[in-house]
Amino acid sequence: MKKYVIGLDLGGTNSVFGIVDAQGVIKATTSIKTAGFSDAKDYVDAAVKALAPIIEEVGGIEKIESMGVGAPNGNYYNGAIEYAPNIAWAHEGVVPLADMFSERLGIPVALTNDANAAAIGEMTYGVARGMKNFIVLTLGTGVGSGIVVDGKLLYGSNGLAGELGHVIMERHNGRLCGCGRKGCLETYCSATGVARTARELLTTTERPSLLRDIDVDAITSLDVSIAAGKGDELAKEIYQKTGEMLGLACADFAAFSAPEAFIFFGGMTKAGELIMKPIRDTYVENVFPLYRNAQFLISGLDGSSAAVLGASAIGWENAERVKK
Amino acid sequence: MKKYVIGLDLGGTNSVFGIVDAQGVIKATTSIKTAGFSDAKDYVDAAVKALAPIIEEVGGIEKIESMGVGAPNGNYYNGAIEYAPNIAWAHEGVVPLADMFSERLGIPVALTNDANAAAIGEMTYGVARGMKNFIVLTLGTGVGSGIVVDGKLLYGSNGLAGELGHVIMERHNGRLCGCGRKGCLETYCSATGVARTARELLTTTERPSLLRDIDVDAITSLDVSIAAGKGDELAKEIYQKTGEMLGLACADFAAFSAPEAFIFFGGMTKAGELIMKPIRDTYVENVFPLYRNAQFLISGLDGSSAAVLGASAIGWENAERVKK
Repeated sequence: MKKYVIGLDLGGTNSVFGIVDAQGVIKATTSIKTAGFSDAKDYVDAAVKALAPIIEEVGGIEKIESMGVGAPNGNYYNGAIEYAPNIAWAHEGVVPLADMFSERLGIPVALTNDANAAAIGEMTYGVARGMKNFIVLTLGTGVGSGIVVDGKLLYGSNGLAGELGHVIMERHNGRLCGCGRKGCLETYCSATGVARTARELLTTTERPSLLRDIDVDAITSLDVSIAAGKGDELAKEIYQKTGEMLGLACADFAAFSAPEAFIFFGGMTKAGELIMKPIRDTYVENVFPLYRNAQFLISGLDGSSAAVLGASAIGWENAERVKK
Repeated sequence: MKKYVIGLDLGGTNSVFGIVDAQGVIKATTSIKTAGFSDAKDYVDAAVKALAPIIEEVGGIEKIESMGVGAPNGNYYNGAIEYAPNIAWAHEGVVPLADMFSERLGIPVALTNDANAAAIGEMTYGVARGMKNFIVLTLGTGVGSGIVVDGKLLYGSNGLAGELGHVIMERHNGRLCGCGRKGCLETYCSATGVARTARELLTTTERPSLLRDIDVDAITSLDVSIAAGKGDELAKEIYQKTGEMLGLACADFAAFSAPEAFIFFGGMTKAGELIMKPIRDTYVENVFPLYRNAQFLISGLDGSSAAVLGASAIGWENAERVKK
């Protein structure tokens, strides 16, 4: 009987593989660098080579049901990575990565974007077990989202629905976003956005802060979180503002899909109540009354393996689909 | 063989009933006032009495498969009208109208809000035939929305998803909305919002306009549309601004569900290109590139009967569901 799936968390820097059982236990892992390949074929060659020993470790490919991939700009409908700005071998075209892996490994392969993988991961192994309508927001370098409606990921007409990091939160003098537009949610509420808020406050005010001990251009959201943990007022205010904007954004998202929960994923959630309290408070104060009861949760997946588990969950879902 | 459904367009003022065949032909109609009843039972009594002759006209209740109701604050999950501000007999509680009609008529009855009914109507008889992912925006006294994802209405965790008229478009000094919050889309882009924009421009500027011939407190969106049709610059600017804000709103909505089309419904669409052009232009200029290809369409349903057809479409959908 086949009892494992391969999960691949394909990030801009590293690609982490895990072989995962149906209970979400990672049986074996390996990784390669994502960068450094001239084309996608070379990348897949290196990945298959790295996978070979861990596949043997669990009893060979015949024990493996399927593979799931979470990747930036991953399109579920065609299994391709499309114009991913941070991946040299995929930034100028459509790379049919699912088909390429499937051909090499001889198993079905499904691919989606990383935030969607996180959402399926929460539903399969995390805090969204039993939920049918929820939204996962990933707070990392950017802000990603996976939207589950009636128990299924929302993919939309082109497979690329759910880019909530790119709704416009500030229509007047908004911050310039990597997407070329201004005022996107992710320019304020990603880890990068938090660091940007810190730099703005440090350079435009004279307010005292522990953050002044750090080179202003090198400040990270983690620095801000640590300073806030030590009681630094400026750092606390940064998380307060960030949480308030996320709360306002969630109030608008609720009017769309009336989720029972918003689930936050990524390093920034380590700030805990520093960010979660302003999110909840601002949401409740500002949401249309019909949606007041939504829960606000932090991902239930173990940080270091969450993305691999999310990807593996896409693999299990795909295995079910292929059987039907 | 049963071959008709009853569609009920339940508005704040009038309730219009139609008996509709599978091709969307309205075979018979009747109506009653919505207001003037002390409780929901009296309303249903009057409705059933008014329906009796037209049911006979098509061959009796055994020819009728189902009934569909489109109503403000209608919840599909429980078939109830919930706290509808404009209906005296439903503004302070949960009225299980679907069950009440079903008991009296002996047929299955489904109920949803008016904008959702419009969306199902477009999918069944209108411009959304064959589409699986689209958003209907109804521009009337308020702004309503019906969101279709993967061929089904998005109802969310509580049956009340899709209140896109209440996303916040203006976070600084936004207009006060009937919902008690500020800056909601519908305070700008409903028929009422257009009239409000006209009043603001007429009272805060000295600009010449044909609209100055009308009592400023009585101006309607139709007056603005007529003046714009005559080339009035101020009136044209009002539609331009209204369309621009709708275009910006649609750009955010696209990031949620990646619809293949936005469909506009309601009297204001009679302004045609006056409003559709700024919507399209602003959308294309401002949307996240992945969603640039969405279409912008005006409802394909005949205005006077569109709401009844939409309600009847809910009836057909319900008949299918009951059979399964």
